[in-house]
Amino acid sequence: MEVAMKIRKLGQDDPRRIIHSIKVGVALTLVSLFYYWRPLYDGFGASGIWAVITVVVIFEFTVGATLSKGLNRGLGTMLAGALGVGVNYLADLSGQKGEPFVLGIFVFLIAASATFSRFFPGIKARYDYGVLIFILTFSMVSVSGYRVEEFLTMAHQRLATILAGGAICIIISIVVCPVWAGETLHNSVISNINKLANYLEGFGGEYFHCSEDEQHVTSTAKDKSLLQEYKVVLNSKSMEDSMANFARWEPRHGNFGFRHPWKYYLKIGSFARQCAYQIEALNAHLSPPLQEPSQFRRVMEVPCKTITSESAKALKALATAMKTMTDPSPSSQLHLTAAKSAINDLKNSLKSATTQISEDISNLLAIISDAKVASILIEIVKSVEDLREA
Amino acid sequence: MEVAMKIRKLGQDDPRRIIHSIKVGVALTLVSLFYYWRPLYDGFGASGIWAVITVVVIFEFTVGATLSKGLNRGLGTMLAGALGVGVNYLADLSGQKGEPFVLGIFVFLIAASATFSRFFPGIKARYDYGVLIFILTFSMVSVSGYRVEEFLTMAHQRLATILAGGAICIIISIVVCPVWAGETLHNSVISNINKLANYLEGFGGEYFHCSEDEQHVTSTAKDKSLLQEYKVVLNSKSMEDSMANFARWEPRHGNFGFRHPWKYYLKIGSFARQCAYQIEALNAHLSPPLQEPSQFRRVMEVPCKTITSESAKALKALATAMKTMTDPSPSSQLHLTAAKSAINDLKNSLKSATTQISEDISNLLAIISDAKVASILIEIVKSVEDLREA
Repeated sequence: MEVAMKIRKLGQDDPRRIIHSIKVGVALTLVSLFYYWRPLYDGFGASGIWAVITVVVIFEFTVGATLSKGLNRGLGTMLAGALGVGVNYLADLSGQKGEPFVLGIFVFLIAASATFSRFFPGIKARYDYGVLIFILTFSMVSVSGYRVEEFLTMAHQRLATILAGGAICIIISIVVCPVWAGETLHNSVISNINKLANYLEGFGGEYFHCSEDEQHVTSTAKDKSLLQEYKVVLNSKSMEDSMANFARWEPRHGNFGFRHPWKYYLKIGSFARQCAYQIEALNAHLSPPLQEPSQFRRVMEVPCKTITSESAKALKALATAMKTMTDPSPSSQLHLTAAKSAINDLKNSLKSATTQISEDISNLLAIISDAKVASILIEIVKSVEDLREA
Repeated sequence: MEVAMKIRKLGQDDPRRIIHSIKVGVALTLVSLFYYWRPLYDGFGASGIWAVITVVVIFEFTVGATLSKGLNRGLGTMLAGALGVGVNYLADLSGQKGEPFVLGIFVFLIAASATFSRFFPGIKARYDYGVLIFILTFSMVSVSGYRVEEFLTMAHQRLATILAGGAICIIISIVVCPVWAGETLHNSVISNINKLANYLEGFGGEYFHCSEDEQHVTSTAKDKSLLQEYKVVLNSKSMEDSMANFARWEPRHGNFGFRHPWKYYLKIGSFARQCAYQIEALNAHLSPPLQEPSQFRRVMEVPCKTITSESAKALKALATAMKTMTDPSPSSQLHLTAAKSAINDLKNSLKSATTQISEDISNLLAIISDAKVASILIEIVKSVEDLREA
């Protein structure tokens, strides 16, 4: 029962998962045709198995990942195949006795240096799989070339089936309900900014307990979850990195061109994380149990609320602008100016209310610094946006 | 030239990388023996190629990752093989005509549901590779079983070579300069805590510009880098998660038992990240250009410095205690008490210095809240430590 519930939940959270599973099933069944269908079998022979392997290994959730793995696999196989043939030729020259030694030394050298190259961050990020396939194919070719005589026919058959398998994967993943890594990245960055905005919106009410009590009780549960959402942003880095990586391989789709500036998303994402760190610090002040708002807190209530709500609005305006891919300057600028003037108000009211120094100040000033960071963030994000539009 | 420099740097940063590359080379060369050495070749036949594939795919940087992949591969292959034989038997029953259809339906159903199961977070974290291998083997077995008659001999040969390949990988990765995921995790958590401590240590001096100017100039470059180090901690989550995952597969080694409580490391790591978020917020106050310290800043200088240095000492004591795996309570408790009393001092001197409310307060109070968080953190870490010792 519990498992069934979990399965349903996974499917409902993201229906693309079910579609993806079905796509993999269809691709594999198609590829099995290489075996079942006699004309095809006679053409390809036992190498048909390589099409199956290719489909299973290449087919990933997003189009970008599938393309990246497919191209990596193709390139790795070709390069390694060519190199393997060359090494075999060299080994042949050294006669019956020397052949195993020459081959062994080459396998050792190439495997060790290719493995080492996987530690380079640049290669690791983009070509890790290709290098793995390179090592695999090279050692297979050089090792089996020692035995199998009809080497070239085999290589030809194998390449053909691998290409066929890869093509089936890529076509199915692009044509049938494609999941674009770029789109996922785009949406996740936007939803992260929205989460930050939601937090800032909710913070004012939560911290100052301004709402009437009846209303408060009913809205608490929803508010509380809104106030927790931002935590996702804190650890979003690795997911965004890999998505941007895959997005780079994707062809033109929807509003995204082939050379869409994905790296700006990473920049925006890292600014959003900066903002989330500040919010995390701010959040620590929400945890102590409710207490009667002090005199001092009342003084700062109005400007603080303006700051948070205006920052939230500016962030939301940015998110909307990103969604529609328009220039975000006018609307977010407006809210930003409002937020900045509220900061000045706050400073002024503070100066006039020096009668009381209490713990409250820490909260208050945390808000100031947070609002400042938010405004810096927004300004930077805006310039990034302008860049993207350019 | 530049490439050569980079290669040298990669090797110097972590010599284990070079050793790992050599280990992979040795393992592959050993496995090639299956092909070169006639008695072995006669025993295993062309399936020797599977040993090569296994070595290339399984051999990972850490022992835990290699073991996890190896066991996943073994389990996935066996399960899928058994299921494949069963399905083939069923398909045989349905006659010459129906066979391809029955097989196709089974391949589709099992591939789709296994692919879907990879979306479960629990399976994704630990058995992702196993499920992939399961799909791969199952479709290979069921598809090729349709053609190849001597199915069981082949399965037997293949399993034997895969086991041999896996065994070579595991033995080499454990015996020759092993890289334990658990040890890596242990060291990285400790060095993260030390980085936080270094930051706190450096912060006092940097913020209050207390050091004499001559000294200041020489120490600046080193201090600056110390103050940046903590940023690594912010994004440490995914690395720690995967290391803890692999560590779980590792056998007893050094001071770590088989059932070493790795999940406490994750807890400690997440507290360290909490602390790093606070430091990130604090760090924003270091960026404005140098300015003459105000009267107010002088008041808070002494207690603030005590807070940061004592927190730093407590963190360092914790790190040392983790390193030697002893009970950290006495030494860190000492520094913690000192830090707490410094917080009280600070509050008192603030109360007596109400003459000036300026921007400085924000910095000051950020420090208070940070020190508080640090002390909370330390207390929690300590209890976790106690748990671990128990």
